[in-house]
Amino acid sequence: MPSGSFLDDYSEGAHPQILEKLLETNLSQQKPYGDDEYSIKAKACLREKLESPDAAIYLVASGTLANIISIANCLRPHEAVISASTGHILVRETGAIEAIGHKIIVVTQENGKLTPEGIQDALDKNAVYPHMAKPRLVYLSNATEVGTIYTKAELTAISDLCKKRGLFLFLDGARIGAALSAAKNDLTLADIARLTDLFWIGGTKVGMLLGEAIVINNKSLAEDFAFHVKQRGGLLAKSRVLGIQFLEMFRSNLFFDLAKHANELAQLLSTGITEAGLKLEAETETNQVFAILPNALIEKLQNEFHFYVWEKVPDDKAVVRLVTSWATTKDQVTAFIKELEG
Amino acid sequence: MPSGSFLDDYSEGAHPQILEKLLETNLSQQKPYGDDEYSIKAKACLREKLESPDAAIYLVASGTLANIISIANCLRPHEAVISASTGHILVRETGAIEAIGHKIIVVTQENGKLTPEGIQDALDKNAVYPHMAKPRLVYLSNATEVGTIYTKAELTAISDLCKKRGLFLFLDGARIGAALSAAKNDLTLADIARLTDLFWIGGTKVGMLLGEAIVINNKSLAEDFAFHVKQRGGLLAKSRVLGIQFLEMFRSNLFFDLAKHANELAQLLSTGITEAGLKLEAETETNQVFAILPNALIEKLQNEFHFYVWEKVPDDKAVVRLVTSWATTKDQVTAFIKELEG
Amino acid sequence: MPSGSFLDDYSEGAHPQILEKLLETNLSQQKPYGDDEYSIKAKACLREKLESPDAAIYLVASGTLANIISIANCLRPHEAVISASTGHILVRETGAIEAIGHKIIVVTQENGKLTPEGIQDALDKNAVYPHMAKPRLVYLSNATEVGTIYTKAELTAISDLCKKRGLFLFLDGARIGAALSAAKNDLTLADIARLTDLFWIGGTKVGMLLGEAIVINNKSLAEDFAFHVKQRGGLLAKSRVLGIQFLEMFRSNLFFDLAKHANELAQLLSTGITEAGLKLEAETETNQVFAILPNALIEKLQNEFHFYVWEKVPDDKAVVRLVTSWATTKDQVTAFIKELEG
Amino acid sequence: MPSGSFLDDYSEGAHPQILEKLLETNLSQQKPYGDDEYSIKAKACLREKLESPDAAIYLVASGTLANIISIANCLRPHEAVISASTGHILVRETGAIEAIGHKIIVVTQENGKLTPEGIQDALDKNAVYPHMAKPRLVYLSNATEVGTIYTKAELTAISDLCKKRGLFLFLDGARIGAALSAAKNDLTLADIARLTDLFWIGGTKVGMLLGEAIVINNKSLAEDFAFHVKQRGGLLAKSRVLGIQFLEMFRSNLFFDLAKHANELAQLLSTGITEAGLKLEAETETNQVFAILPNALIEKLQNEFHFYVWEKVPDDKAVVRLVTSWATTKDQVTAFIKELEG
Repeated sequence: MPSGSFLDDYSEGAHPQILEKLLETNLSQQKPYGDDEYSIKAKACLREKLESPDAAIYLVASGTLANIISIANCLRPHEAVISASTGHILVRETGAIEAIGHKIIVVTQENGKLTPEGIQDALDKNAVYPHMAKPRLVYLSNATEVGTIYTKAELTAISDLCKKRGLFLFLDGARIGAALSAAKNDLTLADIARLTDLFWIGGTKVGMLLGEAIVINNKSLAEDFAFHVKQRGGLLAKSRVLGIQFLEMFRSNLFFDLAKHANELAQLLSTGITEAGLKLEAETETNQVFAILPNALIEKLQNEFHFYVWEKVPDDKAVVRLVTSWATTKDQVTAFIKELEG
Repeated sequence: MPSGSFLDDYSEGAHPQILEKLLETNLSQQKPYGDDEYSIKAKACLREKLESPDAAIYLVASGTLANIISIANCLRPHEAVISASTGHILVRETGAIEAIGHKIIVVTQENGKLTPEGIQDALDKNAVYPHMAKPRLVYLSNATEVGTIYTKAELTAISDLCKKRGLFLFLDGARIGAALSAAKNDLTLADIARLTDLFWIGGTKVGMLLGEAIVINNKSLAEDFAFHVKQRGGLLAKSRVLGIQFLEMFRSNLFFDLAKHANELAQLLSTGITEAGLKLEAETETNQVFAILPNALIEKLQNEFHFYVWEKVPDDKAVVRLVTSWATTKDQVTAFIKELEG
Repeated sequence: MPSGSFLDDYSEGAHPQILEKLLETNLSQQKPYGDDEYSIKAKACLREKLESPDAAIYLVASGTLANIISIANCLRPHEAVISASTGHILVRETGAIEAIGHKIIVVTQENGKLTPEGIQDALDKNAVYPHMAKPRLVYLSNATEVGTIYTKAELTAISDLCKKRGLFLFLDGARIGAALSAAKNDLTLADIARLTDLFWIGGTKVGMLLGEAIVINNKSLAEDFAFHVKQRGGLLAKSRVLGIQFLEMFRSNLFFDLAKHANELAQLLSTGITEAGLKLEAETETNQVFAILPNALIEKLQNEFHFYVWEKVPDDKAVVRLVTSWATTKDQVTAFIKELEG
Repeated sequence: MPSGSFLDDYSEGAHPQILEKLLETNLSQQKPYGDDEYSIKAKACLREKLESPDAAIYLVASGTLANIISIANCLRPHEAVISASTGHILVRETGAIEAIGHKIIVVTQENGKLTPEGIQDALDKNAVYPHMAKPRLVYLSNATEVGTIYTKAELTAISDLCKKRGLFLFLDGARIGAALSAAKNDLTLADIARLTDLFWIGGTKVGMLLGEAIVINNKSLAEDFAFHVKQRGGLLAKSRVLGIQFLEMFRSNLFFDLAKHANELAQLLSTGITEAGLKLEAETETNQVFAILPNALIEKLQNEFHFYVWEKVPDDKAVVRLVTSWATTKDQVTAFIKELEG
């Protein structure tokens, strides 16, 4: 691949500080299965940032595992998940949630987001007792699959509805770094801990080799959580690998700094595109830019840069997706814009 | 309930001939678990009507069991079902298919029916390997959940597409009697056996106490089927109870006679409604009538008759559903029409 | 088969009173899915005999369904069942419990029975957190698979241990009629309701066409039970079929009278065998007789009677199993004994 | 922990060469989800060593995932696994295999190993069609959970039986490095590829941060394997993390060199123990030493070294487990022996 890839935010390895720590700690002998000192310290750091001293935290290797384990822990066999039609668990995880036995009730999305009205509608349409699975958990992502973010007011409204209707609220945070570092964002990690029953913090897409941290705030859901981590294959013998990385990310502000960097370069890219007289498909809120470009221009750009063509649109144009990451440089963005204008 | 119920086609027990046979055979000692002589004879009768001497046939106690067992037998964990948005497995079986691990891919329906275009669209939208579950089985019902039927041309087109694309075709026949006895129908049991990989013949709604017969035509799907029947709780110790009933239904033409009776009374009802100057929500093809009645009339009718109010519509009206059965009498229908006109 | 079958207790149809009631009520229009008046009355009768006015009761079509539904309702994915090595769920239900996701921890049995010591040992050996599934439900059968019964003292000791250790106690009552009608029995239905969290009352083997009644005494387990009945295919449209039969069995003492008849004929058979100078493999406690007969005698008996040869033993002998039922007559037993002696 | 840990073979990070490669390749932009160039090269290297140019290979993050994914891929819902009573999937994976729906049939082990006789016995005892789950896959580990290894003759005999009886043979290779580097070993990677249908090569316990390579030799099992990897959460976005490590291990002889080092130090330890007049519980075949030590000596040793006390035995003694790894030094072993003798 050419050096200027805008394909995704997981094309490189890890931020150099992460790798240095792996080296530095390599020969220290540690307990396995989550009891290593780095995992313990990383969780302590996280609890402080979450302002949630009692939160249970588990570190796992992939986002799909985080979703499988969390939902398996929360639901009985007759209970269903409510998700937006763009939800990652619905369209990109090979039926992982159904494979552990649960129906997903699909709700029309708005800019990738769920609304209280959409959830209420799903409840109304799934109430024929006992012939319909019982809605029990609301799944949403922040940032969403299309790069948008929830405001504090939006997430609070959903959280209130969930509490009122006896629904668990579960947030997929594969790109929570990007969301909380967005210019428009007014949520904090502590807000999310308070508003949800459980959620996870994605490390892979911010600059770790791998690793996602599941945070369980609702105590009634925490008791036997470790069994599910093990049963689904999520408990690493060398849990230190995840602990060291999360500790490095959260002992300082590294996690948010890296996410902010990616967001800012996406803004730069976005501005460059509109200043070149081209249109965006959607406002750029995080590190994903959706732009409408003429096919001829796309072809030319593809000689130098890698990115996905998302969708054909009329008039010989297409929507392209451009993703920035911790590793994207200002020079790459400038080169792209230059090529646009040329 | 008042004697004039149009609530559903399972309000009474069984057709008297069925009960007589249960009595007559009661003390004969039989082998259990499907090896009784009545089950064996019933299957022989069915194979003849199916013109399929090698079909494997299993008798089970409920339609949901028939769906669970059939789908569990056919699919591996990563494989998904394609269903219309009105499909019984999707909206009235409490997530039974997801509970055994399979995603259901939802297709927009037309009059309750799937089309080749709808299936093709589902295939196109579920092709991101390996991030999406693999479409592998098409589920449809005949008659459909809204009382419509598939023509031979329609079912053949779907069957052809399934063969071409490596999909199993599975037909839920909870009301297959009504479908095959409809005035417009041009399909036979033998056609259905030939066009599908497996399907089931619903006994409960035609006039049995209980019982559905699963027919497996695709030999590659038949080999270990019995394990699934047992594993999901579908193997009755006194399998004779199902065997006797199916034998009585299919040794003569009783099954189709009863279904035809119900369809004809539905037609009578339907005609009476339109002749009274009222409208139907949909053409009456089988034993379900969907009529649009003023709310005041509905209230009056409910003093004498039982039926479901299906959906509110504008102008102080509602759609009502009226179902006829083997046990519905011409007098009941006449009384209803008289009340309409009064 | 010859009229003198001792193969099992489900060779015939139903007791004639049962069939009469099905006939008598046949045309009464009833609500479906458990809301028919017969099911409601049958449950009221049962609650009275159980001395448990708040017990939740569900009627289903087969014993395997009763086990699947009950266990699916009680357990989360990481929780396991404790069962004797002879347990029906372990050795005769095609992995039905594993198919819904649960491990079965096997305990050595004594005369087909679990003991507190055996359960305690299973707890001790399955305590490596979180690397082992968590023992959560004790499954036992009364009568057991080998025809023995639990005394009140034995069941109380197990119940006490379960309460102390946070385990649910679930009793499979496929042959609970035989157990509670045994000469040695000192338990009542009300005792069993009090000592277990949930259990089921087998109708099929006592003289119904089909039907088992699940009784849930632990209120925390009852709330969403109906969803599981539907999800696993156990909710019959014509639930009246089960309601009528259970009502007939329990509005009088019919259930226990039939079970007692079978037990008494088993005793007669058992006594005849020992008086003929032959040995029993185990004491006859219910309606199953296990006798050790010379192979030559077995061969001769098989000309006239049907029964299973259970196990070869030394000296040209074998253990045979002889089962009596509500339909077995004294004449059949006498004929068998005469043949023995001849 | 003190520097002299004999607790397990996953107390440290990774072999330094592995970490160097992660650093060296860090900024290279790569495709995700298994399509990175390192994974592709690693698989090519492995295929060469396997002498199996068509083998399908998937890299996943944990051993439990490797077991879940492999078994989910191979079995239909009614099919069961045969395992030794010491099998990891049976006693240390929290019911992971049952959680995906499969029964495990337990066979008595001999030195941690399965035998053809044991497998044959399991087949004989699980043949009541269709009331018992169908045995379909044999699971074994090499090295076993107790550190023993299979000879070529032993594995061949099992493989032959499996082929004859239509069983898949699946080998858990969490410690396959230790097994194939053992003094007594006469098997090669290529032998194992030839004798099994699928198996996995454990990286974690040899000296990788994490990573196990599943090898599928039976083509009929390979076709849709990737779906299962994704569905169970095993597909890493940054698959390069696994690819780089396996490439480094297998482009040279590093994998086997590290395993051999651990084995040799275990031999040194083992010899030291017997020369000190103490007994072994079992012969030391790989990198696990099981020794019988007096409790007083154990207490003294625990001041300086970490290890597990495995089991109490008579005469104030206990069995202890001592594990060596790529990171164990000769000095540590010498210090331990000296302390023994002191």
